[in-house]
Amino acid sequence: MSAQPRLVEVRQNVLKQNDIVARELRQRFHEAGTFVVSLVSSPGSGKTAFLEKTLTLLRPNYRVAALVGDLATDNDAVRLARSQAPVKQITTGTLCHLEAAMVRDALNEWNLDELDFLFIENVGNLVCPSSYDVGENLRLVLLSVTEGEDKPLKYPTIFNTSDLAVLTKMDLADAVEFDMTAADSNVQRVRPGMPVLKVSAKSGAGMSEWLQFLTSAHVELRVSRLSRA
Amino acid sequence: MSAQPRLVEVRQNVLKQNDIVARELRQRFHEAGTFVVSLVSSPGSGKTAFLEKTLTLLRPNYRVAALVGDLATDNDAVRLARSQAPVKQITTGTLCHLEAAMVRDALNEWNLDELDFLFIENVGNLVCPSSYDVGENLRLVLLSVTEGEDKPLKYPTIFNTSDLAVLTKMDLADAVEFDMTAADSNVQRVRPGMPVLKVSAKSGAGMSEWLQFLTSAHVELRVSRLSRA
Repeated sequence: MSAQPRLVEVRQNVLKQNDIVARELRQRFHEAGTFVVSLVSSPGSGKTAFLEKTLTLLRPNYRVAALVGDLATDNDAVRLARSQAPVKQITTGTLCHLEAAMVRDALNEWNLDELDFLFIENVGNLVCPSSYDVGENLRLVLLSVTEGEDKPLKYPTIFNTSDLAVLTKMDLADAVEFDMTAADSNVQRVRPGMPVLKVSAKSGAGMSEWLQFLTSAHVELRVSRLSRA
Repeated sequence: MSAQPRLVEVRQNVLKQNDIVARELRQRFHEAGTFVVSLVSSPGSGKTAFLEKTLTLLRPNYRVAALVGDLATDNDAVRLARSQAPVKQITTGTLCHLEAAMVRDALNEWNLDELDFLFIENVGNLVCPSSYDVGENLRLVLLSVTEGEDKPLKYPTIFNTSDLAVLTKMDLADAVEFDMTAADSNVQRVRPGMPVLKVSAKSGAGMSEWLQFLTSAHVELRVSRLSRA
């Protein structure tokens, strides 16, 4: 355990460096009028299915793109590309989170001015991504009903650094006897006031509410840029 | 990204230090005749439910105990204690894995000579725990059918460092249209020859096969100690 304090110190430098890059990214996103949403969750919570559905529903009316992080494989990029939106895979090797610099590098060939929405799907992990700002406007934490109601209490930091909780796989809620009241109250305990959205990418339930949320957020972003100009 | 190489170097020192403690632990476990099983998986895969069932089934005939790691809360220790086995919670704060030294410290008040089986439930994470040896005889990687068949390919290191894969929540396999052939073949691609156990803690399916596996392993351990003495 003796090496631990030095590890903490070095990690703090990495985080500081990350925050600088994230701030630059956020400025670029704002100038381009791109609304940026990041998605975090444990592996298998349904991030990719939810995102594929979101891209497909937005694409007729908005210019959308996605970056997707994984340790290995480009399976998720292949799945998301079925939505016809531009998608890029970031493979992190053994790293359990995305960093702002990876996002910056992956965006090199894209023109942000041509994007209304950019989605960033993080590596499946309820711990590591919590400390890394990637310049997003909105961070979603997804939790599938099959994972259990206690996850907000057991992984408080990731819930505490998110803006919106999304309960996924609602079509399975009855089969797993999911206790919605307990889940809601656990979310509120770690992040008072955080809205909780209930969706099923399979049945489509809750998706129109989510789209409405996104498009209002986009309008607000455009208005805030106009009033600034 | 400039600070990254130094982070890697410091992390390697931490890992080396961990390996030394893990080796000492493994030696102590062997001398005491305690068979040690660690459990890794993503959050909500059903580690605690599977372990509670295992402890309850073993307890009439064996002396069993469990350590359980979490970032926050002692919910899992409380759940496992229902099995009547001795249980100790290790809270890791922001750390996404258990280290050998945490296991050593948690064992301080227990006499290993009085234990046939010790179970170590790691923090829910498919990335971080893979590099940390905790002195176990057997590492289980659990994967619930609700997480999808692709997880071995996306998190190859954790599957590659495990000895046995356990497919959990088999009672939900039909509801989520789980493709067993794909899951099996993905496991074999990253870890050729690894046995795959299919269980449901809810229905009890597969548990007797698992108990048989454990008790044979324990007999082997006792025999290997006799032949050494």
